[in-house]
Amino acid sequence: MATALDKITLAKGAASALAQASTAQKNSALANIAELLPARATEIISANQIDLANGVANNMTESLQDRLRLDEARIQAIADAAKKIIGLADPIGDVVRGMSLPNALKLTQVRVPLGVIGVIYEARPNVTIDIAVLAIKSGNAVVLRGGSAAEQTNKVLVQLLQDALALAGINSDAVQTVDEFGRDGGVEMMRAVGLIDVLIPRGGAGLIQQVVQEAKVPVIQTGDGVVHIFIDETARLDWAVEIAHNAKVQRPSVCNAVETLLIHENAVERVLPAVLDRLAESGVTIHGDQATQDNFFAAVPATDESWATEYHDLDISVKVVKDLDEALAHIAKYSTKHTESIITENVENAERFLNEVDSSTVMVNASTRFTDGGEFGFGAEVGISTQKLHARGPMGLQELTSTKWLVRGAGQVRA
Amino acid sequence: MATALDKITLAKGAASALAQASTAQKNSALANIAELLPARATEIISANQIDLANGVANNMTESLQDRLRLDEARIQAIADAAKKIIGLADPIGDVVRGMSLPNALKLTQVRVPLGVIGVIYEARPNVTIDIAVLAIKSGNAVVLRGGSAAEQTNKVLVQLLQDALALAGINSDAVQTVDEFGRDGGVEMMRAVGLIDVLIPRGGAGLIQQVVQEAKVPVIQTGDGVVHIFIDETARLDWAVEIAHNAKVQRPSVCNAVETLLIHENAVERVLPAVLDRLAESGVTIHGDQATQDNFFAAVPATDESWATEYHDLDISVKVVKDLDEALAHIAKYSTKHTESIITENVENAERFLNEVDSSTVMVNASTRFTDGGEFGFGAEVGISTQKLHARGPMGLQELTSTKWLVRGAGQVRA
Repeated sequence: MATALDKITLAKGAASALAQASTAQKNSALANIAELLPARATEIISANQIDLANGVANNMTESLQDRLRLDEARIQAIADAAKKIIGLADPIGDVVRGMSLPNALKLTQVRVPLGVIGVIYEARPNVTIDIAVLAIKSGNAVVLRGGSAAEQTNKVLVQLLQDALALAGINSDAVQTVDEFGRDGGVEMMRAVGLIDVLIPRGGAGLIQQVVQEAKVPVIQTGDGVVHIFIDETARLDWAVEIAHNAKVQRPSVCNAVETLLIHENAVERVLPAVLDRLAESGVTIHGDQATQDNFFAAVPATDESWATEYHDLDISVKVVKDLDEALAHIAKYSTKHTESIITENVENAERFLNEVDSSTVMVNASTRFTDGGEFGFGAEVGISTQKLHARGPMGLQELTSTKWLVRGAGQVRA
Repeated sequence: MATALDKITLAKGAASALAQASTAQKNSALANIAELLPARATEIISANQIDLANGVANNMTESLQDRLRLDEARIQAIADAAKKIIGLADPIGDVVRGMSLPNALKLTQVRVPLGVIGVIYEARPNVTIDIAVLAIKSGNAVVLRGGSAAEQTNKVLVQLLQDALALAGINSDAVQTVDEFGRDGGVEMMRAVGLIDVLIPRGGAGLIQQVVQEAKVPVIQTGDGVVHIFIDETARLDWAVEIAHNAKVQRPSVCNAVETLLIHENAVERVLPAVLDRLAESGVTIHGDQATQDNFFAAVPATDESWATEYHDLDISVKVVKDLDEALAHIAKYSTKHTESIITENVENAERFLNEVDSSTVMVNASTRFTDGGEFGFGAEVGISTQKLHARGPMGLQELTSTKWLVRGAGQVRA
């Protein structure tokens, strides 16, 4: 029987075929995926039912069951998402820079695929297709570890992806799953030096820390989001209320939801009650510092840990600060460098915030929920990088590429 | 006494000041460096004499002594190199991409410094200045570990760098050395998660492998160069002779020197003797396969290991192949993905070689010695990345940057 390493090696072997595939061929593979998904809905749903039954037997939470569940409508939505990527520009071959040297050597820096991408993620079958579609379009082979809880569903989906590649005349080994090897499959990916060019863990903080600590292959750190909104002295009341509410309540479980509100002390009287009322009406628990508690009686006391907590839920930490400097210092101390937003009418403060906050995405007068590959026009995302190396923020097609230098000469030698 | 971690923490603390420094301020620091180097030549040379004396006592090789040695002329050359970086464009703040979303959010992706760069390198004091100058110009703090063998020299140079920063009004903590902690300093750098944004090992294969294996912080792999030249059937004789000779002989100890020549079987009679004669005349030992030995009697037999060997010396492996496909397959198997060059008059083969060779730099009719930050117009280089993540090929100012997304809104919330 094939081992996890065998499967990673198969993907590596197919990487150059996919790297050389034309945009037309890759788009044809994507069209096949979009067509095969609804065509095989019955088979996919049957496999999904097995995973769901196992989940129930293993006391899987309702919310995890919901993420795992596929029905015809959801399968069609995944197919539609795949179809959208066909219309996006293929980054491979793009010229990034170029120059002619004094000795007449012609240099061109062009985009090329990374090679083999490894992704370790939670049991969400839609992510299997999202990631594979982005990888294929950017010319990369991909090794997937999508969680044992989705093993049966992913098995059917990966077979579908391989069939879609084969129908497009591309080596179908380019998509592999190591789900059947459980945790060992993930460990093998972390050690696959020379086979996997980048490993992207996507999921809870525990998984990400484990991969960062243990992997021998290059890793991109994603996702952790202790996200801040600073309501400045001059903030418009309606924007402060609506942005804070949207950033917390619209989907509290995700990484770009806000976790801490900082409020300028001169805005407390004018803005704080309306902002917190609107949150509390939606069932949000306010964890406030003393000044917040003094001004909003429903607040529970914040503790030292509150400021570093990613609630993923209808909870928010609130702190009154004396000025922008204190807000910036608080963010520098507690932010996970994902996304922060300032609500202000003061252009100097807006520019200082944009310049000085060291996060993947820094906003003025907008909801933090916009840090998202789909919203940014990338079609989908492989994850949101919170590190600075290689990619920062939502990772779409371009973030799955490397470059190489092409040098065209006419006999030049170095003096 | 300060520990290595204390020093790394100091660099981290100064990173945001350097990130916010204006181009004028950073250029002023560089001008100060160029001025202080000759002004302090006596002090630098005295410290260097101590290192050299220790080196002799420890049986340091002549070639390592030469790399370590500083005199007035060399110090002036280092100062001149620093001055050149003043004239290069500052990448910080450059807009990489930007768009306006359907909801009128304005997105701008701008270049920002990486933060804190760690570099572990061999005992070459000129590298201390080269790297610090690139780091400062790109707005990055830097932690240096330049080898115990250069400890006294580097101590004086790092003090000079700190003085140059202070004179320019920049927090001088932004440049640190951990040389005094020996190997422990390097180990501390590898573990400095959250403090060092990228660690670049520069030196022998052993050092690089150790860092790749042990580091918990993001690493960029550099340098290993099993570099190939393929002499195609149609190669011009004069170019084949001069390029192969230049690539091997001009400076055999460096990573972009050629290690293996592949020759098309139909070019053997016409080209091989002249190419190998010219190499042999310069004292190069030819390690040939059977076909090479049959056609060049001075060749010694190549072994299986020859093809994977980076000689760093006047030795070259030579193999006759039956066509471009065999050359590409050999390169795919043995290349360290640094640089490869084809000598050909056939445009289809040239394009296939450029497309299909998966290396940082791929050349047509040019010497592999050109893969170099200085030659590429980058002023200098921190290293030559042989990995695909973040940077590939010579790393100059731009390769020391990350990006962040700036989002300007007017109250937008997500639907």
